[in-house]
Formats: sequence, C-alpha cells, structure tokens
Amino acid sequence: MKIALDAMGGDFAPERPVAAAIEALAQFPQIEKLILFGQENRIREELKKIGHEKPDPRIEIRHCKDVIEMGDSPVESLRRKRDNSILRSIEAVRDGLADAAVSAGHTGAMVAAATIRLRTLPGISRPGIATIMPTETNLFILMDAGANLDARPEHLLDYALMGSVFSEEILGYKKPRVGLLSIGSEDVKGNSLTKDAFKLLSEAPIHFAGNIEGRDLFENPVEVVVCDGFVGNVVLKTGESIANAIFQWLKHEIKKTPIRMFGAWLARAAFRAIKKKTNYEEYGGSLLLGVNGITVIAHGSSTVKAIRNAIREAVEAVEHDVNNRIIRAAEIAAAHKEAQSDAIPA
Amino acid sequence: MKIALDAMGGDFAPERPVAAAIEALAQFPQIEKLILFGQENRIREELKKIGHEKPDPRIEIRHCKDVIEMGDSPVESLRRKRDNSILRSIEAVRDGLADAAVSAGHTGAMVAAATIRLRTLPGISRPGIATIMPTETNLFILMDAGANLDARPEHLLDYALMGSVFSEEILGYKKPRVGLLSIGSEDVKGNSLTKDAFKLLSEAPIHFAGNIEGRDLFENPVEVVVCDGFVGNVVLKTGESIANAIFQWLKHEIKKTPIRMFGAWLARAAFRAIKKKTNYEEYGGSLLLGVNGITVIAHGSSTVKAIRNAIREAVEAVEHDVNNRIIRAAEIAAAHKEAQSDAIPA
Repeated sequence: MKIALDAMGGDFAPERPVAAAIEALAQFPQIEKLILFGQENRIREELKKIGHEKPDPRIEIRHCKDVIEMGDSPVESLRRKRDNSILRSIEAVRDGLADAAVSAGHTGAMVAAATIRLRTLPGISRPGIATIMPTETNLFILMDAGANLDARPEHLLDYALMGSVFSEEILGYKKPRVGLLSIGSEDVKGNSLTKDAFKLLSEAPIHFAGNIEGRDLFENPVEVVVCDGFVGNVVLKTGESIANAIFQWLKHEIKKTPIRMFGAWLARAAFRAIKKKTNYEEYGGSLLLGVNGITVIAHGSSTVKAIRNAIREAVEAVEHDVNNRIIRAAEIAAAHKEAQSDAIPA
Repeated sequence: MKIALDAMGGDFAPERPVAAAIEALAQFPQIEKLILFGQENRIREELKKIGHEKPDPRIEIRHCKDVIEMGDSPVESLRRKRDNSILRSIEAVRDGLADAAVSAGHTGAMVAAATIRLRTLPGISRPGIATIMPTETNLFILMDAGANLDARPEHLLDYALMGSVFSEEILGYKKPRVGLLSIGSEDVKGNSLTKDAFKLLSEAPIHFAGNIEGRDLFENPVEVVVCDGFVGNVVLKTGESIANAIFQWLKHEIKKTPIRMFGAWLARAAFRAIKKKTNYEEYGGSLLLGVNGITVIAHGSSTVKAIRNAIREAVEAVEHDVNNRIIRAAEIAAAHKEAQSDAIPA
C-alpha cells in the first residue's frame, strides 16, 4: 500500500508530519511506500533533526515549491499556488501513485482539491467529512463535519448511506442506526432542509432512527449522525470548547484549596480516563467520503500521534475497500428507490 | 406590575408553576398581581397541597379548559385548542391585563402565539429567543435559540440589535461585542446565510466582532452571539448534553475505586461550584425578543426555582423597558443605514 502525506500541512509542519511518517512506518508494515509532498530541503532538515538523515527506504520525497497557508481562500489558493503539497498529494491518488492522501493542512483546500481532481463516486452527489466522536460506551460518526456548508436534502441522504458504510466497515457496527440531527424528535420539527431530508431518509435502505436532538448525541447515541456541514462543524467545535472549558474551570476551582488539590490528586486516574476518551488524537483524522479516492483530513493543530493515527485511518479505509462498498450502497439505494416508485400505481 | 403565568406549562404542571408563583410573590414585592392561567380545579388542588388553600390575594386564577401538550404541532394546536393557557397568557399581555407572560410549556406554541397575537415590534422583522449562557468569567447572550429555523440575513441583523440591547440593559455590559457564529474567523468563511449576514452586521451601529467559531464560545467569549434558530438550538442542547455526559463519565470513573471516591469527596466543593455555574436553573428562562410584549419561555423540565427565576427575568425586562429600548435601537439602525446610502454617490 502507498500513502501520500502532505508534509507541509498543519500548524507545526513539516516537523510533525515528518515525525508521524517515521512512526507510521514503524507501526504499519503494510505501508510499502510513504510519499512526503512538500519543500524538499525543509523535509530533509526535519529528517536529519530526528536522526533519520538516511531515512527508511520506504520514504520518498516529492518536492513541491508552494505551501497553502491556513488563512488562504481554498479555491483561489489552489489556482494561484499550483505546485502545492495538498494538490500534489491528491493528484498522486488520482494517478495511481498512492492509495490514499493524508493532510493536516487547510480543510477547505483539501476538500476542493479532492472534489476537483478525484471527482465524486458514481451515485454520490457531494462529498462529506466523516468524523468519529466518542460517547462513554460508544463511537459514532458525525457527517458532514464541514465539507459542504449549504447542503441540500439529497446530500444528507448520501451522508446517511456513506456514514452507514463507514460505521459497518471501519467501526464494526452491525446495522448502524442513522439519526438526523434536528431540534425535536417528531418529523415535523426542524428547518426546511431537515424536513425534506427526513422524507428521503425514511424511504432509504438504511436503519433510520428519525430525528435526534443535540441532547441525544451523548446521552442516547445512535451510530451515525447526519447534518449539514455548517451545523456539523459548529457542533464539533462547540463540543471541544465546552469539554475544554469544563476541565479548565474544574482546574481553577480545585487549585483554590490544598485539600481540593489533594483530593483531585487521589482521583487523578478518573480524570485521565476521561481526558483520554475525549482526546481527538486517538481518532487522528476524518475521512472525506464520496470522492473517488481515499482522503484523510487531520486537525490543523494535530500532534505527531494524531497525524500517525490519521495515517492509520487511511490504511484501514484502503484495507476495507470503503469506496467500493459506498458505490455498492449507492447502487442498492438507487434500485430501492426505483422499486418504490414502480410500486406506486401511476 | 402584573405577570401572567401559564400554570399548565412544562413537564410537571401545574405543580411546579403553582409553587413557583408562591415563591415569586414572596420574593418580588413589585408584583402586584400574578395571574395563573389553566384548569382552575387543578390549580386550586395544587395550592391546597402546599398549604395555600386561601392564597395570597395577589394571585388570580383564570380558567382555560384546553392544555397544549409538548408533542402537539404548534400552529395547529393553537387553532384546535382555542381556550389554552399559552394563548390566554399572551392575550392578557396584548389586552393590557398583564405586563409580561411566562411559560415553561411548548416553545413552538409560545413563539407562534406571541408572534400572532402580539405582532413584531416596529422595525423588527422576526422575533428570536435570547438565551443566557455562562462562561467561567462572563455571561453571554445566544440569539436565536430556536424561534426562527429558516432565518434570513436581515433576521440575524435584528438579533444583533436586540441582543445588544439585552446585554446592555439586563446584563449590564457596556458596548457589548457581537459575534456571528460561523466556521472560521475570516469573513469569507461560512454558509450563504452567514456570509450575507456578515455584510449587514459590518455596516450596523453595533460593536461587531466578526465571525466567531464554536471554540470561541467559551474560550474567547463575546457578549452577544448571533445565529439562526436551528443552529442555536442545536448548540444549546449539544452543550448541555456534553456537560452532563462529562460529569456522568467522571462519576462512573470515580466510583471505580474507594481512593478515587475519597479524593472526589475532598474536592467536592470544586465540582459543586461548576455544577452551579452550568445549571440552567439559575437563569430560568429565555426572553422572546422582538414581539410587542414581554414573553419569557422556560425549559419544559424546569424546576420550581427555574420557573421562579423565569418570573424574575420577566420582572427585570419590564423594569428595564427592554421593548422601548429595542424600538429605539431599530430606529437608530434604520437612520444609520439611510445615512450610509446617502453617503454613497449615485
């Protein structure tokens, strides 16, 4: 298996992607080639710093002179900075040089590059980002987490199909239930997008659990949560922020007296268990599903471990042949729809 | 001051609203009359249960035979169940019998009843729910929290104006900063609604802080957060759910060993301080701003304390003459817009 890694992607590049590449090669023997895209001299410098001046022969460096910065406009920067590491990684997938592309860089540029260069899978109208979220007892997929900000009902149907495939193949759930994120459980509750999507999801060959509310996400979770990319992104970032804020407040409150500090020290393993569970590093990255090629997008502030885990996700997606499973699911859905319309007398 | 209270509103009615009415009268001497709307025999029974068979003479009971249930469709139930406590409370405000209406009942029915019977304030296109949210050091207003699920850019502008007035008048912030909830801080980031709203907010006579992200809500807070009602409602419920989930996990982890339990007991005051801060009971209810009358909507699962605090919010809104302040703010915004268009050469 060959993996293309954007060595210039993320707030700490090329340092962290390069270190993650070394770790991934040690951990995943199924990777035959790991191609680093980016400014060659800077990549070589990083390799040297961490004692890999003569790196693993499975590493290959492809020089690209341009770097897309986090503040750049996605489509415009892809046009202006043609020789950039995001576009080149994606093109490697398109041209069969790599089985998957991984980046901790600019999400919007990654989505645009993948959509333009790889195109959508047959039967899929729009790609979406599938993010893994933890509950106390469960993992669920939130889709779309920010690829498509003005979604239409048929896009949400595609997310339901793709999210179900992901949940089955990668997370191992049998018959994953799909919930539509809305503001009440009844089908009449929601905005015009979710009301129309509700009808489509009701008729689709998935395990539709109806509308779910924000409060159900963690207290009464389903396996796949479908929403438009704007809402998904806001939910994701708000969730992170609230979890951080609570731990911060707690820390400040605990520091107020020595007895509280001693108590918290005694209970420290409990805090650690939660921290680990809510730590995005464990999940690493998010698959952009719906494009014709495996693409993993990691957090801009990813640690080495997070990028290594994003590479692991790419490996798993390739091994599980996720895209062919999606194509088949879309075919089944299309046949199902046709059978339904045949069943209705003219 | 006269307050209309929906005695049938909420998951524990009439028990909790009736108990809250008694507490509010004890606490707020400025209330001259508290009118309870609902089924008279059930209200009298509750009063008897808590030893107020002959209640405070400031209490008045107005019998209405119909009750709107939480699962009812808002507009349809208002039409079918004409003599219901929500509509009657709102009509009391319209007819000058009460200065404000408070309900822990069906939010959608309350919004519909207020919009239909009270109409919007001059210069305001659509009402929105203003919810108070706590950060470690601050309180902010999230608006709209769920009144208007398919908002247009001009509605978000109204929310920015009304939220600013609320923040100044009720929370006491000078020059409250207004953030537009989006998925990136640059003005080009967002969906079509937020991009258009960004332009309107930039030109308005408010202290516009630009786009803010979910992660800023608690880590880098502004005083007023503007968003459409669907997003606001999802954010609110997700936030509650995450806070609850974290405390639940922590409890389960702590219960795993006696040492952790002892530690947590030593640090218990720290947990309590956070719990108090994140407890919605403290804030009680949310004002529906933009209608021609003071209307407070409380959580369906409100405790007695939460409903009592919702009544307090109504009292404060009346005392601060919030609606006349909104009318003036809308006039200033209209004049400002006119001055701007005059300044542009034809």
